[in-house]
Amino acid sequence: MPRINGERLLADLRRIADFGRYQSGVHRPHLSPQDVESRHWLMARMREAGLDPVIDGVGNVIGRSTRSGPRLLMGSHTDTQPRGGWLDGAMGVIYGLEVARAMAEDPVTKDLAIDVASWADEEGHWGSMIGSKSFTGRIGEADIDAARHREDGSKMRDALAAAGLTDVPRAQLEDGRYRGYLEAHIEQGGVLEHTGKRIGVVTGIVGIFSCRVVFSGIQNHAGTTPMPIRKDAGVAMVRLANAIHDTFPSLVGPRSVWTIGRMVIEPGAPAIIPGRAEMTLQFRDTDAAILQRLEAAATELVGKAHAQGPCSVEIIGWSRTMPAPMDERMQEALDAAAETSAPGGHMRMPSGAGHDAQILAQRLPSAMMFVPSIGGISHHFTENTADQDIVLGCQVFADAAAKILKGN
Amino acid sequence: MPRINGERLLADLRRIADFGRYQSGVHRPHLSPQDVESRHWLMARMREAGLDPVIDGVGNVIGRSTRSGPRLLMGSHTDTQPRGGWLDGAMGVIYGLEVARAMAEDPVTKDLAIDVASWADEEGHWGSMIGSKSFTGRIGEADIDAARHREDGSKMRDALAAAGLTDVPRAQLEDGRYRGYLEAHIEQGGVLEHTGKRIGVVTGIVGIFSCRVVFSGIQNHAGTTPMPIRKDAGVAMVRLANAIHDTFPSLVGPRSVWTIGRMVIEPGAPAIIPGRAEMTLQFRDTDAAILQRLEAAATELVGKAHAQGPCSVEIIGWSRTMPAPMDERMQEALDAAAETSAPGGHMRMPSGAGHDAQILAQRLPSAMMFVPSIGGISHHFTENTADQDIVLGCQVFADAAAKILKGN
Repeated sequence: MPRINGERLLADLRRIADFGRYQSGVHRPHLSPQDVESRHWLMARMREAGLDPVIDGVGNVIGRSTRSGPRLLMGSHTDTQPRGGWLDGAMGVIYGLEVARAMAEDPVTKDLAIDVASWADEEGHWGSMIGSKSFTGRIGEADIDAARHREDGSKMRDALAAAGLTDVPRAQLEDGRYRGYLEAHIEQGGVLEHTGKRIGVVTGIVGIFSCRVVFSGIQNHAGTTPMPIRKDAGVAMVRLANAIHDTFPSLVGPRSVWTIGRMVIEPGAPAIIPGRAEMTLQFRDTDAAILQRLEAAATELVGKAHAQGPCSVEIIGWSRTMPAPMDERMQEALDAAAETSAPGGHMRMPSGAGHDAQILAQRLPSAMMFVPSIGGISHHFTENTADQDIVLGCQVFADAAAKILKGN
Repeated sequence: MPRINGERLLADLRRIADFGRYQSGVHRPHLSPQDVESRHWLMARMREAGLDPVIDGVGNVIGRSTRSGPRLLMGSHTDTQPRGGWLDGAMGVIYGLEVARAMAEDPVTKDLAIDVASWADEEGHWGSMIGSKSFTGRIGEADIDAARHREDGSKMRDALAAAGLTDVPRAQLEDGRYRGYLEAHIEQGGVLEHTGKRIGVVTGIVGIFSCRVVFSGIQNHAGTTPMPIRKDAGVAMVRLANAIHDTFPSLVGPRSVWTIGRMVIEPGAPAIIPGRAEMTLQFRDTDAAILQRLEAAATELVGKAHAQGPCSVEIIGWSRTMPAPMDERMQEALDAAAETSAPGGHMRMPSGAGHDAQILAQRLPSAMMFVPSIGGISHHFTENTADQDIVLGCQVFADAAAKILKGN
């Protein structure tokens, strides 16, 4: 079986963290100058590993193996959250690179083919998983034309042009090329650490339903407007949010989560009755039936609040990503590989975060593996994983890949 | 009795609205270039009316009568809210100017003395009613040194220097100079309009208690952090706000108002559990006992929320302005004058908004009179009052002033 080189793996991870370094983390949003530079570095490293790399029309980097053997696609993303961590995404891409190198160095596995991908914009600065959606044919040129930066509203087309990617073709998944897709990632939560495990084998990626709720009242002077005639949009929002927190516990499953992550009241001054308010509601589960139940409950609560008044309350645009179950045989290969390197030190678990694997899973058998996040921290520059966990994870990943390609 | 000149009154009101005009309203924060310009225009108009005007070291403009008769202080403020209305404040100052002119033109009242004031920064860009507090000795040089702009944090001293007011003395109330203080203002609410009245005689100005409540939790990933271990500061804020709205109705008086005008959650992203939240709570009443009861209830609810966890909850800095009852004999003079010009068209009412009269009331017998606000709108550029109500109000104000000075 292939032996991965821990030193080489860690050195590459540290090198790519130089592009956009921010304190102990990285600031490298998709198509930022640092992101584009890191993609060209990655392509050079792929070439040194004997892969044939391309960068495509949305920024996906794909290093294709020249071997003819059965083939696996591996990857994740190298773009980051604003002032994010150094491993979130990059680790899975460099794992792919290291596994391709280790396979080529081992006589037993040297004919197995590993293609390595860094999917564009997994962190959603221009849309939602544009890279893997483009690769699997879920979005087309019109979607790229329409894509705008979530913060400054600039056009993705302009950023692609600045990166030299105008008129570059978008890579497309060829039917029959791969046995499956394998992605490694940091856990981004504290379950492995709390339970003392070193490897998580992902059973499925949660579906995510979300919506905005908008409350419209009448802005007025907080001293001169008697309580009975007020239409306070802030009160309406507090009442609805409270009702959601009261109602959801009886409807959810054991792993469901729901979050009101954004609340805004306008104009937001101590002595002015809010005339408008807005909040986001998001919930996640691996069970589609639970997601549908929660959507129905939220819709009913909003309808009741609107009917009761005095403010109007409406839901703007449900967004729904369905849960993605992971391939059972690939999970078994990960279990077995983990049991070899870390006996008793692995567990199955759902992924509460979204990943490109949920997009690839619609076209290919797919699986994911987690390594522990120190303190469960992610989406922050202090995110980290112990070196020995990074190295162990890559060995498990290589062994599982070899099993999947050779076996069964 | 003095006859006010409605044309002259309206012309002066329209002229001062040119300084900082914004749509149908005015943007003239204290010590903005437009504000400083308007103060010099006002002084010129005072001079033409036979008054002796000064601008003092915080920007107060005071036009002193040269008459020796019994003396009344009248005024309000000419600074405005951001993109505010044209009458909020300015009307009361121009009323004073018109009453001084009308008194001087009438042989019966020509010896009565009216001093007219425009108090600096009533709208609180640099502090809270700095002008009237400076005039009545409640604040001193150290407070002016410390005053910063609420939005950009710039020093009031620098703005005063730019206005040419460095080393200019601050005007001080002389004991025994006045029989009292009289202020007219737009109602800023819809009570007069709803009841079909044209004049409101103010019984007292509400006290205002307010505080900030800060919620500290732990920011985390909304997908990977199970519900039982979350410390969601947004949930803590929603729960407390809801408890306040549930608890206050049984503790308040018939005219009490309470408002949560500002709510912020951080970082405020749909997929991040809020780590910190903050809200303002403000309540008003003319009864100090009710204010104290509400403060105790809010403090108890915050203590309970903090003790229950999982977030820490604390109140930052209570601010307390006590209620200010208006002078009964001056109210009677306003009632009688209103009954003459608008028989049956007047009512007594509290002021839900704060006014300089509450500061002057600590040193002088004080009273206030309201005219109707169309649609109850204020603190917005669409604020307005019918011309005939503006003119009627000034006549009532002049008659009441004459009664107070001549009579009793």
